[in-house]
Amino acid sequence: MVNENRTLIADAFSKTGEQVELCGWVHRVRNLGGVRFIVLRDRSGQMQLVSDADFPLPVESVICARGTVRASDKAPGGAEIALESYNVLAQAAPDLPVAVNQDPGGLSLGAILDNRMISLRNPKLLAIFRIQAVCVQAFGDFFRSEGFTEIKSSKIIGGGSEGGTNLFPLDYFGKKAYLAQSPQLYKQAMVAAGLERVFEIGHAYRAEKHETPRHINEYVSLDVEMGFIDSERPLIELERRFMAYLFETVRRDNARELGLWEADVPNPESCDAIPIVSYDEAKDIVKKTTGQRVMDVNPEAERVLCDWAQKEHGIAMVFINDFPRRKRPFYAYPRDQKTMSFDLLFRGLEITTGGRRIHEYPMLLEALPKYGLKESDLGAYMDIFKYGCPPHGGFALGLERITQKILGLANIKEATLFPRDRQRVAP
Amino acid sequence: MVNENRTLIADAFSKTGEQVELCGWVHRVRNLGGVRFIVLRDRSGQMQLVSDADFPLPVESVICARGTVRASDKAPGGAEIALESYNVLAQAAPDLPVAVNQDPGGLSLGAILDNRMISLRNPKLLAIFRIQAVCVQAFGDFFRSEGFTEIKSSKIIGGGSEGGTNLFPLDYFGKKAYLAQSPQLYKQAMVAAGLERVFEIGHAYRAEKHETPRHINEYVSLDVEMGFIDSERPLIELERRFMAYLFETVRRDNARELGLWEADVPNPESCDAIPIVSYDEAKDIVKKTTGQRVMDVNPEAERVLCDWAQKEHGIAMVFINDFPRRKRPFYAYPRDQKTMSFDLLFRGLEITTGGRRIHEYPMLLEALPKYGLKESDLGAYMDIFKYGCPPHGGFALGLERITQKILGLANIKEATLFPRDRQRVAP
Repeated sequence: MVNENRTLIADAFSKTGEQVELCGWVHRVRNLGGVRFIVLRDRSGQMQLVSDADFPLPVESVICARGTVRASDKAPGGAEIALESYNVLAQAAPDLPVAVNQDPGGLSLGAILDNRMISLRNPKLLAIFRIQAVCVQAFGDFFRSEGFTEIKSSKIIGGGSEGGTNLFPLDYFGKKAYLAQSPQLYKQAMVAAGLERVFEIGHAYRAEKHETPRHINEYVSLDVEMGFIDSERPLIELERRFMAYLFETVRRDNARELGLWEADVPNPESCDAIPIVSYDEAKDIVKKTTGQRVMDVNPEAERVLCDWAQKEHGIAMVFINDFPRRKRPFYAYPRDQKTMSFDLLFRGLEITTGGRRIHEYPMLLEALPKYGLKESDLGAYMDIFKYGCPPHGGFALGLERITQKILGLANIKEATLFPRDRQRVAP
Repeated sequence: MVNENRTLIADAFSKTGEQVELCGWVHRVRNLGGVRFIVLRDRSGQMQLVSDADFPLPVESVICARGTVRASDKAPGGAEIALESYNVLAQAAPDLPVAVNQDPGGLSLGAILDNRMISLRNPKLLAIFRIQAVCVQAFGDFFRSEGFTEIKSSKIIGGGSEGGTNLFPLDYFGKKAYLAQSPQLYKQAMVAAGLERVFEIGHAYRAEKHETPRHINEYVSLDVEMGFIDSERPLIELERRFMAYLFETVRRDNARELGLWEADVPNPESCDAIPIVSYDEAKDIVKKTTGQRVMDVNPEAERVLCDWAQKEHGIAMVFINDFPRRKRPFYAYPRDQKTMSFDLLFRGLEITTGGRRIHEYPMLLEALPKYGLKESDLGAYMDIFKYGCPPHGGFALGLERITQKILGLANIKEATLFPRDRQRVAP
C-alpha cells in the first residue's frame, strides 16, 4: 500500500493544530538543553520535529513521524511538529562518508563524485537535477508545440558518422561497432522520411581525452532538425524563442532550486536582444575588447564575447554564424567561403552548434573529397539525398552545459548525475 | 527563410477557390489520357495536383507547387489543386530501391530494413513512429503529473548490474567497460537520494544472441521507480492508470495512424478490468485452457493468458504477480517463497517487469549469497541501502513492444527506427 495517512512536508505547514504523519529522511538532529530538534526531509521540503525524548537514530535514517503541527516563529518555515511517535523504515549506518546537511561548497569535486550515491542527497546538489529535469521537459514541450516529432535513433553504429575519430569501439557479437557521436545522420534521415521536423533527447559519446571543466565523454544531446528552410536564420530564430521559453519555465518551476544556488536565468524577454555576429566579426570584437588578435573563437574568446553581449545587449548570449568551411563538417551548407552554420554561446560557453545542411546530392558529392571522404564511406546516408531531400538544417544543445551555466557551476561534471570521464566509469 | 507562403496540405482542403503553395514529396504520378494526376505528400497529409502539362520528375522529388484549390468528388479528401507552377527543391534519382507509395505488406522485413532510409518514407511505415512518439510523450506527461522527476543516468558502466551476463563490452580508454542493461541501480539511487519518484526514458542494451520476433539488442526502456510503498500493488495500480492514459492519448492523437493499420488500442476504461493473477494461478489457467501443464509462463503461455483475459475480462492484458524467487533477481522483495514482483502481458507479450525491491541493508546482505553475489561485487550500489533507503519499487516498459502490440506488428524490428540485432548495425 501507499501510506494513505502521509502528508507531504510542503503541505504540512498550513495544517496548524492538526495531527499529521510525515515520512522522510532524518536530515539533522540537535540536542539543545535536553530538547531534540530533528529536521525531517522529504521530496517536497524540510520540517522541524521537536521532542523531549531521546532520539537515537543516525542522520539519513528513514522514518514516518506523527505529531501535531504548531506555529513557531523560531522554526524554519514558521511551523514545527510536536513529535508524538515514529516508526523506522530504514536505519542508516552512522559513518556517512560525506555530510549531506551542510553546504557542499566545502567538498571537493572528487569527494562529491566518489560518493555520488550519498552526495546527491544533499538538497543543494539534488536541486541541480530538478532543474535539469525541467530543462528536458521544456525542450520536449516547446518543440512538440512547434510541430516537431520525437525520435529515438540507435546509439550503436557500424562506422563513424562525422569523420570517425573520437569514437568508443564496442565488441558487437565479435564485430567492431561504435557508440554514436551524435544522431546527426538519423535526424536528417527522419526529416527526409517525411516527418520534416524532429527532435531527439539522447546520449552522445565522444572518446576525447580532454580533461576540462566543459567536457564529459557521455552527455545528453538535445537535437533538433527541420525541413524547408533556406538558411540558418530560421534555426537561430527558433532557438532564440526556445531559450526564452526555457528561461521562463525554469524561473517559474525552479524558484526554490535557483534560490538555493543564488542563481537566476537571463530575463526571457532579453532573448530578443541576443546579437548575431559573424565568425569574423566575433574575432574583431575580441580584438577590440582585449587588444589581442585571436585565430579562433576559443574558450577565452567565448567568455569575452558573452561579456561584450551582456554590456552591449543586456544578455550574456551571442549567436555566431558564417563559420569558415574548415571549421565545419562536410555537410555544412556553403555560403561563399563560409557556411550557413552557427554556434550559440551562453555565459561564456558554447551550448549549441547548428546550421543548414547540404541537401542536394550533386553538391554533397562535390564536397566529400574536400574532406577526404568518398561516397562509399557514408553508406546509406547518401540515399537520403539521392532520392529527394528538402532543404533543411538543425542544431543540438548540450543538456549538462545548459544546466551548468544556469547555475554557474565550475565544472560540467557537477551537472551530470553519473559523469563519465577518462578515469571514471563508476558509480 | 521559412517559406511564409507555404500551406500545409491538411490545411489546404478547406481553402477551395484560393491560390495556395504546397511543398512536399512527389508521392505518385499517373497519366490518364494526357491529364497528369500528381499526389503530393507533406508531413500533414497528401493532396492531388492536376495538370495538362508534362510532369517529368521521378517520384520522391521535392517540390513547391502553386495552384488553386477546387472541390472534386473524385479527388481523395474531396479537393484537389489545379497545378499552375512549381519549382524543384530536390530531384530524386529514378531508381528508388523500394516503392514507398504502395502497401508495405508486399515487402520482406529484410527489404524494409536494408533500405531503411527510403522505406520509412512509406506513410504506413512512418505512422509506426508517429505513434511511438505519442507513447513517449504520454509516458512523460503521465508520470510528471504524478509527481515523478525525469532522470538521465549513464549507459556506460564499470561492471554488470544484474549478474554480468549478456553485456556488450566497450573499450573505454583502454579499460573494459560495458553498456548498461537497465537503469535499475540508478533509478533506485535517485529514489533514495530524495527524489522519491523518478522516471527515465533511455536506451538499454542486451547482448543476447536470440533471434525472435520479440527481441532486439538495443531498445528504449521506459523506467519508473517510486518510494514509500510496501508491496507491488501500488505499482500495479499506477501502471493500470498509465495504460488507460496511454490508450486514451493514442486513440485521440493517432486516429489517422491507427486507421492506416486498421488497428485500435484497448478501450481505456477496460484497463480497470485487467486481472491480477499469481504466477501459480497463471500456470493453472494455461493448464485449464489448453490441457497442457507448463513449467514456466513461456511465450506460448503468455498468448494463452491474454486470450483468456480477453474472454473473461474483456481486455487482452494480464498482470502476473508472486513470481518465485528463482525467476527474479537478487533485489526482488521476498514474500514467503515468492516475490513481490509482477509482469504485465499485453496481447500475448510481456511488456513490463517490475516489483518491490529490497531496501533493508541486512536483508540484502542475506540475499546476495543465494544469488552467488557478495557485497563487494555491487560496489557503490550497497551505499544506497547502508545509509537509509525508503521501501520502494518500480517497473519498466519496453517502448518498441508497446508499439508493436498496439499495431499488431509481427516483428519488434518493425517498431524500431534503426533496429540492432546480431547481424545488423547499419543503417
